Amino acid sequence: MKLTIERAALLKALGHVQAVVERRNTIPILSNVLITAGSNGASFAATDLDIEIQESAAAHVDREGMATAPAHTLYEIARKLPEGADVTLELDGDDPRLSLKAGRSSFSLPSLPPGDFPMMPAEDLQHSFALETDALARLIDKTRFAISTEETRYYLNGIHLHAADEKGRKTLRAVATDGHRLALSECDLPDGAAGMPAVIVPRKTVQEARRLLEDADDDVQISVSDGKIRFGFGRAVLTSKLIDGSFPDYERVIPRGNEKLMSVDNKRFAEAVDRVATISIEKSRSVKLSLDDGTLTLAVNNPESGQATEEVPVDSKETGFAIGFNARYILDVAGQIEGDEARLHFADPASPTLVTDSGDADSLYVLMPLRV
Amino acid sequence: MKLTIERAALLKALGHVQAVVERRNTIPILSNVLITAGSNGASFAATDLDIEIQESAAAHVDREGMATAPAHTLYEIARKLPEGADVTLELDGDDPRLSLKAGRSSFSLPSLPPGDFPMMPAEDLQHSFALETDALARLIDKTRFAISTEETRYYLNGIHLHAADEKGRKTLRAVATDGHRLALSECDLPDGAAGMPAVIVPRKTVQEARRLLEDADDDVQISVSDGKIRFGFGRAVLTSKLIDGSFPDYERVIPRGNEKLMSVDNKRFAEAVDRVATISIEKSRSVKLSLDDGTLTLAVNNPESGQATEEVPVDSKETGFAIGFNARYILDVAGQIEGDEARLHFADPASPTLVTDSGDADSLYVLMPLRV
Repeated sequence: MKLTIERAALLKALGHVQAVVERRNTIPILSNVLITAGSNGASFAATDLDIEIQESAAAHVDREGMATAPAHTLYEIARKLPEGADVTLELDGDDPRLSLKAGRSSFSLPSLPPGDFPMMPAEDLQHSFALETDALARLIDKTRFAISTEETRYYLNGIHLHAADEKGRKTLRAVATDGHRLALSECDLPDGAAGMPAVIVPRKTVQEARRLLEDADDDVQISVSDGKIRFGFGRAVLTSKLIDGSFPDYERVIPRGNEKLMSVDNKRFAEAVDRVATISIEKSRSVKLSLDDGTLTLAVNNPESGQATEEVPVDSKETGFAIGFNARYILDVAGQIEGDEARLHFADPASPTLVTDSGDADSLYVLMPLRV
Repeated sequence: MKLTIERAALLKALGHVQAVVERRNTIPILSNVLITAGSNGASFAATDLDIEIQESAAAHVDREGMATAPAHTLYEIARKLPEGADVTLELDGDDPRLSLKAGRSSFSLPSLPPGDFPMMPAEDLQHSFALETDALARLIDKTRFAISTEETRYYLNGIHLHAADEKGRKTLRAVATDGHRLALSECDLPDGAAGMPAVIVPRKTVQEARRLLEDADDDVQISVSDGKIRFGFGRAVLTSKLIDGSFPDYERVIPRGNEKLMSVDNKRFAEAVDRVATISIEKSRSVKLSLDDGTLTLAVNNPESGQATEEVPVDSKETGFAIGFNARYILDVAGQIEGDEARLHFADPASPTLVTDSGDADSLYVLMPLRV
């Protein structure tokens, strides 16, 4: 194998694929990137056995073939090469090492047999559709903060993606929850997605997909089967296993009839919560919200570090109502609200509160209260 | 005690003094900042028993007096308060807690008796002089990277600051070494510094002083005794204990007669060293330098991660000379070189190499070689 590639193209492709490679691997080949020189140029692939990222790049191919080399090392070298350099990668039959040459720099890197590289079996992913890059980014951004990190509840360790029917409107819906809060966001159902299975996309896949969206074309090609999902971003393709489990019946958790309404300037609300939470108890981050005559009083009482209160003007008819939340969770939701106003729909101090966004009718959030 | 202060002034003063407060303290009062409301405004002080930082700030004082409050908490609150807010701090005789009010925010913070705050005894620091802020910043920047972190060699855990005589020129000289490399930088001796004792300024003091230099007046007022040093930066004053030990006779380490000279473009040299070092052995970061006919060849050979070589054109008459260094140490020195050229003065592969800067005659560096 012998190919020559511009440093910028090499850096971009390696930057995309190497992120999936774990720092420590008990299986040596998983530390390596697979380099393929073919008739159409170069392609680079890396995997952690659950996620595979492949990216093609323009390259001048002298001799077709395949090679592998340590992904992080190769990326670091590419990063440090001077801008505009031409990089030649060569694996000669007689030498088990990969040679890299650029200008007056020369590297010889350990290479494992390409045959050992565990490519994911090419599999038929029956359901395919195209989604605007911005729409996918929104589905991810508005929900991923609520993904659970509790490994025992593995079925919550991802985003639940499925076709839904919201009062007759067909949507593609993303939901995440950790049992303490829930986030839901949806968009019009793309053509071809109607029969897709309801899947759970793992946290790491979500993270890698979000990263690749930054350099993606206008549309992302998504293919799904029961066990796998594939995102085509243009030159980069991410294929991932799905979480094999049942996502809970989240609809039952979303309170649809909460009648105690409070509208508040979202920025002002978030800043006030952040301030009083400075002295909240590390673990619960508990903050108390009290509504009286159009004023919301935020209060924190921490036996160790003192008391804090702040008043925020709100639009609400409720008086004498009080409820507690984890400040961190309020701030996560406030961080995703696009409109000027956050709208909190309360039932009672022990029941879930619904949060909606004056600027986005396609997303909603649920916060479980804390006892205060 | 009752005072009102602009949020920006409070934030600046707390930002300066709170940095000295350790995250964990077995003595509770050390987590607190001492607030003094006097006839001239407010002053804030914090200490870790080795370093004390005091800063004065303009404030409207309603009632003179003193109070203490948790330094990091108070700083966090000040940081989160809206720009332009007026902050009122009050300690009432009847309430053991410090009240903080700003706009519609109100905090009540635990306060320990001001009498418990361990102020450093006001002591006569006999030797006083003024030094330009930029000159002190240079002395620190050019040497501090070489400070040892080995706790057993406590006398190397700081910068050795003293009056020196360099071929008849009186200088204020800073030296740091960890036994593997040495850095020396000096400036003209300021008036009043001639009789100062040779001292060792601890690493943390160096770090805090460097930070405070960012907001300092044009001149820094320095006072020294055998046991303490004080830096006056304008509103902020840092007083620190010195390291009680003998700095080694560093002059003997500096090779003055090395005759094998190599001049190299510093940027190009540093980039090439950084590139080949990508695959160097983690621990030693060993890189080999070979000189032949005006070409420097950098080589790394790591049984695990491969080989790397790079050629760099240099100005040198030496041929067939080779020597090894820790790449990290070369890069640290290269990072401080201001001129276009780094000049390496070699003796032999087992002896210290002197490095000088084409753009700064007041600094020099010594690198101990590695066997390669």
